[in-house]
Amino acid sequence: MTDNIDQNESLTEAIQEALEDERFAEASATFSELHPADQAEIFNALEDEQQDVLLELLDISTTADLFDELEDDETLEAAENLSTERLADVLDEMDPDEAADLLGDLPPQIAEEALAQMDEAEDVLPLLGYADKTAGGRATTDYIAMRPYTTAQQAIQFLREVAPENDVPYYLFVIDRQKRLVGVSGLRELVIAKPDATMQEIMDTDVVSVSANADQEEAARIMRRYDLSALPVVDADNRLLGVISHDDILDVIADEATEDIYALSQVSDADIDPNSTIGQQIRGRLPWLIVNSFASLFAAWVISNFGELITQVALLAFFQSVVAGLGGSSAGQDVAMMVRALALDKVSKGQARRILIRQVLVGFLQGSAIGLLVGIGIGLWQQNPFLGLVVGLALIFNMLVAATVGTLVPLVLHALKKDPALASSVLVTATTDAMGFMIYLSLASIFLARIQQYIPI
Amino acid sequence: MTDNIDQNESLTEAIQEALEDERFAEASATFSELHPADQAEIFNALEDEQQDVLLELLDISTTADLFDELEDDETLEAAENLSTERLADVLDEMDPDEAADLLGDLPPQIAEEALAQMDEAEDVLPLLGYADKTAGGRATTDYIAMRPYTTAQQAIQFLREVAPENDVPYYLFVIDRQKRLVGVSGLRELVIAKPDATMQEIMDTDVVSVSANADQEEAARIMRRYDLSALPVVDADNRLLGVISHDDILDVIADEATEDIYALSQVSDADIDPNSTIGQQIRGRLPWLIVNSFASLFAAWVISNFGELITQVALLAFFQSVVAGLGGSSAGQDVAMMVRALALDKVSKGQARRILIRQVLVGFLQGSAIGLLVGIGIGLWQQNPFLGLVVGLALIFNMLVAATVGTLVPLVLHALKKDPALASSVLVTATTDAMGFMIYLSLASIFLARIQQYIPI
Repeated sequence: MTDNIDQNESLTEAIQEALEDERFAEASATFSELHPADQAEIFNALEDEQQDVLLELLDISTTADLFDELEDDETLEAAENLSTERLADVLDEMDPDEAADLLGDLPPQIAEEALAQMDEAEDVLPLLGYADKTAGGRATTDYIAMRPYTTAQQAIQFLREVAPENDVPYYLFVIDRQKRLVGVSGLRELVIAKPDATMQEIMDTDVVSVSANADQEEAARIMRRYDLSALPVVDADNRLLGVISHDDILDVIADEATEDIYALSQVSDADIDPNSTIGQQIRGRLPWLIVNSFASLFAAWVISNFGELITQVALLAFFQSVVAGLGGSSAGQDVAMMVRALALDKVSKGQARRILIRQVLVGFLQGSAIGLLVGIGIGLWQQNPFLGLVVGLALIFNMLVAATVGTLVPLVLHALKKDPALASSVLVTATTDAMGFMIYLSLASIFLARIQQYIPI
Repeated sequence: MTDNIDQNESLTEAIQEALEDERFAEASATFSELHPADQAEIFNALEDEQQDVLLELLDISTTADLFDELEDDETLEAAENLSTERLADVLDEMDPDEAADLLGDLPPQIAEEALAQMDEAEDVLPLLGYADKTAGGRATTDYIAMRPYTTAQQAIQFLREVAPENDVPYYLFVIDRQKRLVGVSGLRELVIAKPDATMQEIMDTDVVSVSANADQEEAARIMRRYDLSALPVVDADNRLLGVISHDDILDVIADEATEDIYALSQVSDADIDPNSTIGQQIRGRLPWLIVNSFASLFAAWVISNFGELITQVALLAFFQSVVAGLGGSSAGQDVAMMVRALALDKVSKGQARRILIRQVLVGFLQGSAIGLLVGIGIGLWQQNPFLGLVVGLALIFNMLVAATVGTLVPLVLHALKKDPALASSVLVTATTDAMGFMIYLSLASIFLARIQQYIPI
């Protein structure tokens, strides 16, 4: 099998045609034999009514696999069209962590009714208490746990009997009577152990686990750090609640990166994608633009204090944005580097001072290079060496400001346990804008007479 | 075991003290019993000379684990201090994919000598031909391959004998005489199969694989899409070259996200981190600032065409940056959303037009809201309704421009098979700046007389 993305478009068309021509069995059969990842893509490409028709044609297990694969809001939308009875059956077949997410998203009354009709509600109940983006919310109860005195042979026999589903992690967890996690064994250790060895002898007692209330980002960080393909989730008493598996963590890492990218570009809700509604987008974007509006009015106020100066030399107004904008670009580079370094845990406590000193030095060097380039450029263009000097000096100063705030703001927000990505770019750009205008126009006031000398009358 | 990050600082100090007091055995013992992830963190916190001393104390296997864990450039630096003989021994013990990366980074002569002295050069040789960031470059040759007629019992016996290392993926690949990949079996399917079943019977022939020359991002995308914890890498003849394992893919996803974040903030080299040298930073950042310098000089030239106007009404210069800046922020939101959607494969070919229409509509709505807010604000502040009108209208128009270029530029770059993150933010900001100034000052020319009416003399 090669990767199917390119052929999905023609498949979508085939299924659409079959649905339109009421060849329902064909549509359902074509759809059902695809990989759930492809099913989800094709399902999303269908019109709303076609989705509803298709959903009624699919069997419970296919529907469950599809729901596991769809984004949470897409699953919710599709689930709301099912009868409670069918919904309960589908929930029974879904991954427990996805089922818990869906139950949390459904209107409370429907969720309650569906839970009451489920056969395997006990798999989902322990997960309902944890928010989507916590370790507990990402955990599945589809794992294999053994007791310490079970032998390798018994364990293998047990595995043969339950023939676990394809997406169960490849670890066996060892728990005591109180369900406390005491050890872990890979399937491989089990296979290569002597048949009568007990789990107690086989297991590794050095288990890395994560608390159920920890942020999913923390879980991802631990899995990345220790190269784990499954991470047990425990409660405050070290009782095993569930397991986060490798495919969930891939999604977490991608989600967290999306969140950072969005935050740096001042978009709030990481769920926004090209299929989001206009309302969702505006809720995620407009508040930031409003904050920016106030910041830019403040910057305009800074300029307005130099109104007299600009009246005398209108030329000065051409270059104020050069100083502010390049300062903003340079600060944005620092913010991105710091946010990413903090997210990937590359900054240890003792390093903050050293990093700040180095970033300021980089800012000075970049400011000097850009100041020289742009200063000489403007000096020659306007035939006005002092104007070039003022722009060049202002660029150096503003890039020093940029490096300082671009490094410090993320560090301080991180130290205060706030997300450094979220507020940094707004705060930092506001500062480099206002300071850029102030530095440039103040320097221009100082050199006013010299600049005016070179202006043709 | 809980996660060790917080205690690493005191461990670093303990090891530093032991090295200073020449209690070498203690330093080496303390260090050696840590998890490689913690070893790497502590190693990086040591002074250069301390690193050299420690490296001489460690045994081959600990050094190899440490090298596997360090970033590529850190490994290179540490490796250059080893004798060729020791280096060859360490390379033998390293993960083949990491060893291949190191050999590719070393000066050619040293790499050749080390390869000649290695005992297991044949594990590394097939990987040397692939660049770091391709699927081939990420693959390890540490995998388990079986022939189709091997029975489950024989396979388990084989596993018991070779007792593979901890980080070998939990899949068994089935290859024919020509090493062509014909199937895959999970360890679990093996365990639950009848002892005399052959691999041919057990295996799944529907193997998802990736070409060795594919970008690592493609490999990550496939693994994420199909929830795989290991992905076989094949050559053009479908011969199995190696396997990408789940921990490598976690790094790839994080690296690719870093690359996108950096590109959006105009930083080029994703390897830059707080420990990078000043030279590395400037190489990754300055070129973008130079490009931005030209863009901002162009914007200044746009303003300079309205020099006469600004001389007449200096007031206009206060608000030009408000229009340009808010347009830039709004465009940045569109770029981030598009870049992320494209990276995560959420945009299919047919959707581009629909997405563009929707984003432009969002731009219009946001422009209207912000235009109203800021326009009224400025009108009241300056007691000048027509100035407020001009700023408000300019904001609406510029946000339409912002939505159009912010959506189109990433889409077009993606269609041209260029990285949409890389050039988008520069191109888009340059456009919203220049267009913002032009729209605002043109509108101001039109309403000049009206605006002047309200200016106190």
